[in-house]
Amino acid sequence: IQESDTARLQHLLEDFHESDLGDLLEALDPDFRPRLIELLGSAFDFTALTEVDEAIREEILEGLNPSTLAEGVRELDSDDAVTILESLGEEDKAEVLDQLPPMERIALQRSLDYPEESAGRRMQTELIAVPPFWTVGQTIDFMRDTADLPETFYEIFVIDPAGHLLGAVALDRLLRSKRPVTIQEIMDDEPDRVEATQNQEEVARLFERYNLVSAAVVDEANRLVGVMMVDDIVDVLEEEADADIKQLGGVKSDEELSDTVLYIQRSRFPWLFANMCTAFLSAGVIRFFEGSLERMVALAILMPIVASMGGNAGTQTMTVAVRALATRELGRTNAWRIIRREAAVGILNGLVFAVILGAVAALWFQSSQIGIVIGLALITVLIFAALGGILVPLTLNRLGVDPAVSSGPFVTSITDIVGFFAFLGIATLWFSL
Amino acid sequence: IQESDTARLQHLLEDFHESDLGDLLEALDPDFRPRLIELLGSAFDFTALTEVDEAIREEILEGLNPSTLAEGVRELDSDDAVTILESLGEEDKAEVLDQLPPMERIALQRSLDYPEESAGRRMQTELIAVPPFWTVGQTIDFMRDTADLPETFYEIFVIDPAGHLLGAVALDRLLRSKRPVTIQEIMDDEPDRVEATQNQEEVARLFERYNLVSAAVVDEANRLVGVMMVDDIVDVLEEEADADIKQLGGVKSDEELSDTVLYIQRSRFPWLFANMCTAFLSAGVIRFFEGSLERMVALAILMPIVASMGGNAGTQTMTVAVRALATRELGRTNAWRIIRREAAVGILNGLVFAVILGAVAALWFQSSQIGIVIGLALITVLIFAALGGILVPLTLNRLGVDPAVSSGPFVTSITDIVGFFAFLGIATLWFSL
Repeated sequence: IQESDTARLQHLLEDFHESDLGDLLEALDPDFRPRLIELLGSAFDFTALTEVDEAIREEILEGLNPSTLAEGVRELDSDDAVTILESLGEEDKAEVLDQLPPMERIALQRSLDYPEESAGRRMQTELIAVPPFWTVGQTIDFMRDTADLPETFYEIFVIDPAGHLLGAVALDRLLRSKRPVTIQEIMDDEPDRVEATQNQEEVARLFERYNLVSAAVVDEANRLVGVMMVDDIVDVLEEEADADIKQLGGVKSDEELSDTVLYIQRSRFPWLFANMCTAFLSAGVIRFFEGSLERMVALAILMPIVASMGGNAGTQTMTVAVRALATRELGRTNAWRIIRREAAVGILNGLVFAVILGAVAALWFQSSQIGIVIGLALITVLIFAALGGILVPLTLNRLGVDPAVSSGPFVTSITDIVGFFAFLGIATLWFSL
Repeated sequence: IQESDTARLQHLLEDFHESDLGDLLEALDPDFRPRLIELLGSAFDFTALTEVDEAIREEILEGLNPSTLAEGVRELDSDDAVTILESLGEEDKAEVLDQLPPMERIALQRSLDYPEESAGRRMQTELIAVPPFWTVGQTIDFMRDTADLPETFYEIFVIDPAGHLLGAVALDRLLRSKRPVTIQEIMDDEPDRVEATQNQEEVARLFERYNLVSAAVVDEANRLVGVMMVDDIVDVLEEEADADIKQLGGVKSDEELSDTVLYIQRSRFPWLFANMCTAFLSAGVIRFFEGSLERMVALAILMPIVASMGGNAGTQTMTVAVRALATRELGRTNAWRIIRREAAVGILNGLVFAVILGAVAALWFQSSQIGIVIGLALITVLIFAALGGILVPLTLNRLGVDPAVSSGPFVTSITDIVGFFAFLGIATLWFSL
């Protein structure tokens, strides 16, 4: 790159798949990234930019001049073009759009008008639609004669003159039918369809549930506006799982490996801050029993065990509940059954661990009374942990708050407070401290 | 069902998609499940059984008689048939296989011989393969004339007489080519291929990375043995994300909503037990400072705050690291950079929270010295938390242990021990307790 040896670079990167090219961009020194793209010129496949982390994409786009960008975006499928345009500032976006031919500009503009994370943003507008009275032969000839077909497609759509979706024909169905058969005869008249304004996560669940490969995207009047492809759905599902995992771990869902130290520090701050506040609440509970602790230091030694057992049991239940809510496995119909089940598991594990923990504590402090007190406290906290772990996500979900983001601090503050209160309270009563 | 009204049931369930039928089965009383299947007879689509939780599937299969089962399995795509056969005991499996026609039996047997979770288990053996010298016209005619084609397919494969994979032709490519063109001219001679013994997770990553819809499965001699379809890949990715989420939350990866209380209690026991052991370790650290605690009860009140901040910061880093390892974003090339970055985030958040926490504690206990001590302890524990959060998963991964399963207990025991030791140790020195 330093020598600007365009020919050699083009030759070297000729056979690179867009994902590999994306990796190469990520591995390069930031200054070289836009440089490489300008050098490659039309040999650079802009799809590669959709494969890099968002922070890197934004940075690269800033370094490119708008004409190179407009040239590159023109070559892209509409869904990839939208991804790139989304990463641009308002001004740059307008500038790039201005340099595109009117047809493409209008199509992209329309996609960008749909809400973020909707099917309309992710859909591809390149598709094949034919009228129902065409024959299989006509359709095949049309496809052979048209140069500007979508890059890949798995079904063709059937529409009426006003653009309303009538049906769809899978390619294998088309291939297996004789030439004189009309499209109407072989089309599936209840094709899989999604609304352009539907959330991408909902659409992904549909694909997953019904094993779809592509689905028509229609507007509110059932007019065909695009097609959703499974490769985009795979990305949506991955992003969503990623977001759930990160949020449960107390990290912002958009944190990426390429982010700066400052960005990450800010991404992790809110969770730690929430945790600090709840920790002070539990410390307040402990302070309430200051006198007991002064008289019996063994309580201070053992109390973190009770709280941490509760925290872990609560997290277990919460994890299962949050994930089941995300995959729509947990809903109104089975919520009550799962609550009872979790409570039963809590009681059972409470009893088992009360015996183990009680015995070990009794031996360690040479006092069977300590064992009984910690055992009773543990049963209490594990029951509260089970109930908190399931009821907190369910309630947040009912209130329209994403349970993956905010369940954690609630559940751990419940288990901490109950843990310290139960153990120190029972001990104070038992030993009359 | 109670009235055994077959005709009405068949009519009612006629238009049900297999996923919905699966949901219906899950919602039914366990005793009615096999009953419904027997009543529906050949109208029951056995694919529905691949859509239910594994525990329910096993239970239903036990209740069915082998001939119904063999009949049902015969109608299935090979990948679905394998899923069902996997859930059977050895004896039942042999019995069902015996009742199948020889060709199908051999194909299924071969799939079952591949290791669990390999591409060979998930692949579909129904596919279309043609010799390279055929023309497009010949191929299309062949597909029109053959009744027994796979249910859906997106590409056809090209093989030599010995069955070696030569190339692949996407259906849209086939449709767009003129009849006299030979397959050889339009085939992609470097088709996407995976080895039958390859792990399904690796295969899924390839699909995700290169946006594949199907890929040829070959044996070690490059002979075509099947095809992997994207709908199975979607399931693999979901299962894997599910497993990661559950394991990070301390739950066994195969725990399902339909499991019994006893199963779940056992699934959650090991993590709680591991936590109990590490909690005793930390209690040991606290006991070491028994004297200090007796002299200054404020330490007992504040020490859980330090430990819980450390635990949460460690979990944040660990979550990001475990997920990045699972998606292959974190590897040897960038490990060192990520370690330095996490350490920097740890120091930064350590400083920020040392100031906040120190100030609040100083006000609460009317002692600026307490504030300084807790601040110093917090910086220490947040740096250890960052390093533990990244080094533990990396080390486990290097040792070949799944970091999602076992990182948690290690990281929290590090942060607890460091947290209590740093706070109580610094306090003991500072106040000469």
